[in-house]
Parts: sequence; structure tokens; C-alpha cells
Amino acid sequence: MPNIVTFDAVGGADVLKVVDAPARDPAPGEVRLSLSSIGLNRAEILYREGLYFQTPQFPGCRIGLEGVGRVDAVGEGVTGINEGDRFVTGPTNTMAQTGVYGQTVTVGAEHLLPDIPQFTDDELAALWVAYLTCYGPFVEIAGLQKGDYVLIAAASSSVGYAGIQIAKALGAHPIATSRTRAKEAALLEAGAEAVIPTDEAADLTAALMEPTGGAGYRLIFDPIGGAIVEPMAAALALNGHYVLYGLLDPNPTVYPTLLSFVKHMHFHTFMVPTQGIADRAMRDKGTAFLARAVANGHLKPKLDRIFELQDVRAAHTYMESNQQNGKIVMRA
Amino acid sequence: MPNIVTFDAVGGADVLKVVDAPARDPAPGEVRLSLSSIGLNRAEILYREGLYFQTPQFPGCRIGLEGVGRVDAVGEGVTGINEGDRFVTGPTNTMAQTGVYGQTVTVGAEHLLPDIPQFTDDELAALWVAYLTCYGPFVEIAGLQKGDYVLIAAASSSVGYAGIQIAKALGAHPIATSRTRAKEAALLEAGAEAVIPTDEAADLTAALMEPTGGAGYRLIFDPIGGAIVEPMAAALALNGHYVLYGLLDPNPTVYPTLLSFVKHMHFHTFMVPTQGIADRAMRDKGTAFLARAVANGHLKPKLDRIFELQDVRAAHTYMESNQQNGKIVMRA
Repeated sequence: MPNIVTFDAVGGADVLKVVDAPARDPAPGEVRLSLSSIGLNRAEILYREGLYFQTPQFPGCRIGLEGVGRVDAVGEGVTGINEGDRFVTGPTNTMAQTGVYGQTVTVGAEHLLPDIPQFTDDELAALWVAYLTCYGPFVEIAGLQKGDYVLIAAASSSVGYAGIQIAKALGAHPIATSRTRAKEAALLEAGAEAVIPTDEAADLTAALMEPTGGAGYRLIFDPIGGAIVEPMAAALALNGHYVLYGLLDPNPTVYPTLLSFVKHMHFHTFMVPTQGIADRAMRDKGTAFLARAVANGHLKPKLDRIFELQDVRAAHTYMESNQQNGKIVMRA
Repeated sequence: MPNIVTFDAVGGADVLKVVDAPARDPAPGEVRLSLSSIGLNRAEILYREGLYFQTPQFPGCRIGLEGVGRVDAVGEGVTGINEGDRFVTGPTNTMAQTGVYGQTVTVGAEHLLPDIPQFTDDELAALWVAYLTCYGPFVEIAGLQKGDYVLIAAASSSVGYAGIQIAKALGAHPIATSRTRAKEAALLEAGAEAVIPTDEAADLTAALMEPTGGAGYRLIFDPIGGAIVEPMAAALALNGHYVLYGLLDPNPTVYPTLLSFVKHMHFHTFMVPTQGIADRAMRDKGTAFLARAVANGHLKPKLDRIFELQDVRAAHTYMESNQQNGKIVMRA
């Protein structure tokens, strides 16, 4: 029987276990994938800990947002999808049943995201969630234009590297932050025009403004929140957008109201499962934009370490260590 | 010599005094107005107290954002403006010199806002600042559509009444808040579909949701901020916009981050002098939209008390009392 990852209680990485489970035949409207590569996302840590917006269901709770595989069974009423086709299955609102850590998953056909034939399975598993997390904020919310500055905070994640590439595809200037200088070389190599080490900056706002030549940022793209919001927001350009897409800092965010009035600031939160993917219009615009950018040679997912499915606990522990540069992938 | 209002130190209403001053001839690019009606705005209280984003300049500091008058002198290089034409002069970034509390003011021609011939001087003095405060948030930011719900907080101000009328012009449903039921009848008469007394609601979010039938608000339009943001934001519809255009509550606003992720909330601040008026593209779109809505019979400024210029201290004291329903005007 295929292997899948399940857990029976919220907790640390060691609650995850690999078990045998039968592959489920697709109901009408569903397809079954034989999975090969699985992209890891920080959301899965939150889910495992019981802190995600979806609640785990025990026992036998599945986990995982983003998996690549080939169709091996097609349910009634599904058209245009054939056995052997390669797809990515993206976030659903039923992760407990359709989590993709495993060798098989059966999902509604509406959750399949397009193949990009030139990418390997591992690259494809690193594509959609990260790049669609950027597409909405960069294109639909901030409307980044050639010459704009965009600040990509905590940029060494898969989303951060995606953001650097998308900024460059748009002709914008990506500036990265990282807590220290440890990842500076990798971020510059990936296309960041400057890297600001936030833990080392005596005056963070001034350090952020410097590479913009005083222009400030059209977009600040931040997975952190909390206390760093005000000094980062102070580096916005007039009419700039601040998009918070995570909460690495669990402390309250005091809204910088006076600064906001001066900057004409627009503040948004962005959750890719609902706003970038379940919203079909946004998803279709995003996947079309990104497929064109891939064809034009602008985008290539940056892979970090590759784990085997058996080593799922080690993969999660590594993701929690914040050592990675780019996407962590598991092979099913 | 004409009378103007000046003050020589920040403070309460009693720092304001009416003095004689010579009318200043217009420099190139400027026009001089003989003022007749002056609209009062809460910003002038903040300015008088030294709390506005512009700093008073002493001695002889002028004050006032919004005055109606007829052109009595035209500077070199000004075209299309003739003596006797009626205009409104709106906010400038030099209130200390170009404040409009008085019988004369000389300003750059770019600060003149259009006449609406069918309105009296008093009505015209109550039009642009209030209605342009709504135009940007309602039309450009939230894109209100027919059938949407809009929450107009602290609705008994001139801006609040303007918002009710603009919402109705757009086919949206205006719901008002006021601290008590004292102004309920006037707000319903003006077109609010419901009035929620915020000081009396046991569960404010539930009380706000009720008149929307559970749909929630496309836009929350709020001059308060601080502690009321979270319970009001909880009544937003998915993808809703929260626009803060004042700070009646000086306490910090803790951003409702988790709620924002769930609601896909967009949070904006809006300052009409800079975002609605100094931004020429926004101003031109706004005045054109509003002139059409006036022509279609949708908009008519709601006047509250009329004071004489000599009674400027009483006018400010009245504005600070929060008793008004609509616009307070002074006659020059």
C-alpha cells in the first residue's frame, strides 16, 4: 500500500508518522494522483501545531499543501484530465483528508494547478504556492511598475526568492532583508539589489531607505508583523502598500497610524490558499502571468534541501531551524 | 480693512481673534477672493491645538481650509478665471498664510475648487472637503457597488452626511453609527438605513452585522480609530476595506491581524487635503463625479448652524461640543 504521513495529536515534528494506507478511488469530480515531489510550506508547521486557520482532525490527520504527481484515476464528470497527466495539487480546505505528504492523494479536480513541462517534479513542487503568494501582492494589490522598489522581508524563504524573481520580471528593484548577513551572498546571487541585516541595523528605517536613494518602497512584503512593522513602514514611498502574509512575530502589531496618514499607506494581509488560489479569478490571472514569466526565462524555483518522505520529521525540524535558502522538497 | 481670524499661540477656542488686515494683491499665478461663507472642519481644531500635520506659524497665524467667495483680483499668468467668478478655495499646505477664516484671502489659482451654481454660498462652503473625503474611499478605494453595505461611523458630521448621500447615489446601503440615539432620527431622515448606537450595543459586532443580513460591510468608513477598530472590522465582508480618516480616539490602534487574515481585509488611512485634493488626478475625478451626482439630484450638503465671523470662538466651541448634525458654516 502507498505510504502517507499522518498525525494523531498537535505537537512537534515527532507527531508526524509514515503509515501505509489504501489509495482512495476518486468520487465524481475528483482525480487521484500518484505523487512524486512535495513542496514544504511553513503553513504545515502551524497546522501541525494547531495554529493554522484549518483545524486538524484526529486520528489519521493528513498534512501538506502542495504536491506534484501524475493522474492515475479520474472520477466521473471530470473532463480534459487524463491518466498520466502531470499536475500540482494545491491547498484545499480539507487538509485533514487531502494533505499531500504521501504517495497518493485523491482531490477535487478544481484543486489541480497547471503543469509547467520544462520544470522537474521538484521544481514544479516549489512553484505555485510560493509564486502565487507573490503574484497577488506584487501585481494585483501594489501594481508594481518598472523602477519601483519592493522590500522583501525575511527573503530567504521560497516565497522570498520567488519575490526577488517576480520583482525583476516586472522591472522593479528587489531589496531583501534577513536577520543577519549569513544569507547575503545567496540573496545577492539570486538578484536582490541589496540585503539589509535587520538584527544589525542601528537605524533600520534609514538602512532600508538607503538603497532606494530616498525614493522609498512601493511595496513592503512581509511575513513577520509585530514590532518590525513600524520601522519598515516608515520606509514606504507615498501611497505605498504594506502586505503582511505571515505572522512570524506573534506579538501584537500596533498600527502606525500617524505614519500611515503621512505616507498614505495601504495595509493588507494576504493568505495564498484563500486569496491567491481558492479565488479562481485571482488564481487564473496568477498562473497565466507566471507561466508567461517562466516562458520568458524570468522564473526558476530555487530548491534547497531534498528529503525522502520517510524523513518527514527531519524535514520539518530543518524547516523550523530557518537555515534554508529556498524551497524544501520531499520525494514521495 | 477686511477682517480676518488669526491666532498667536496654540490653545483653546479663545486664542482665536478677529483682526483688521490689508487685502494682499495676488502675485503671478494667484487670485484674490472676497469671501462670503466658510465651512468649518475638525482639522481646524487640531491645527489650533498644534496637533495637525501642518504647524501654525506665529504671530498672526491664519486658519481655515474651505471658503467660498468671488474673485476680486487676478494675478499675472492666470487664465480662465475672471473677476466676479465664484469659487471655493480648498486646503493648501500654507494654512498660516492662506487660511480662509476671514473676508479676504489670496491663494494660488491651483487651489480653487469648482462652483456649483445651484448651491448657495453656505451650501457650497459645505461641499468639497466633506464630499471629497468620501469620494476617494467610497469610489476609488472600495469601489462600492449597488447593493454593497457601507458603515459610516460617527455619522453626524458633515462627512457622515455626505457619505450617506454618496452611498445612496451609488446604490449602496448606508448604515450609520452614533454614540447614542440622540441623532438617530436625523440620520434616518437623511437616508441611513439603520443607526447603531455604539455606546449602547452589548455586542457591537453583532449589532453592526444585523442590518446587513449577515453580508457584512464592503467598506467601513471611520474617523475614530483606536479600540473600536477591531469590533467594527469584525463586521466587514470578505475582501472588505477599512478606511480610517480621522483619529477621534487618540489611543493606539492594535491591528486586528488574525481577523484581517480571515476577512482578507484591506486597511487604509485617508487625508483629504493631500490624497483627495492636492492629488490633482484624484481631485479631478472626484469633483467630476460629485458634480454629476449633484446634477442627478443625489447630493445636497446638510447645513447645521450658521455663525458670524465675529463669533468664531463660539463656532469652535460648538464644533467641539459634538452637538452638530451636518456642516457648521461661518458668514464672512
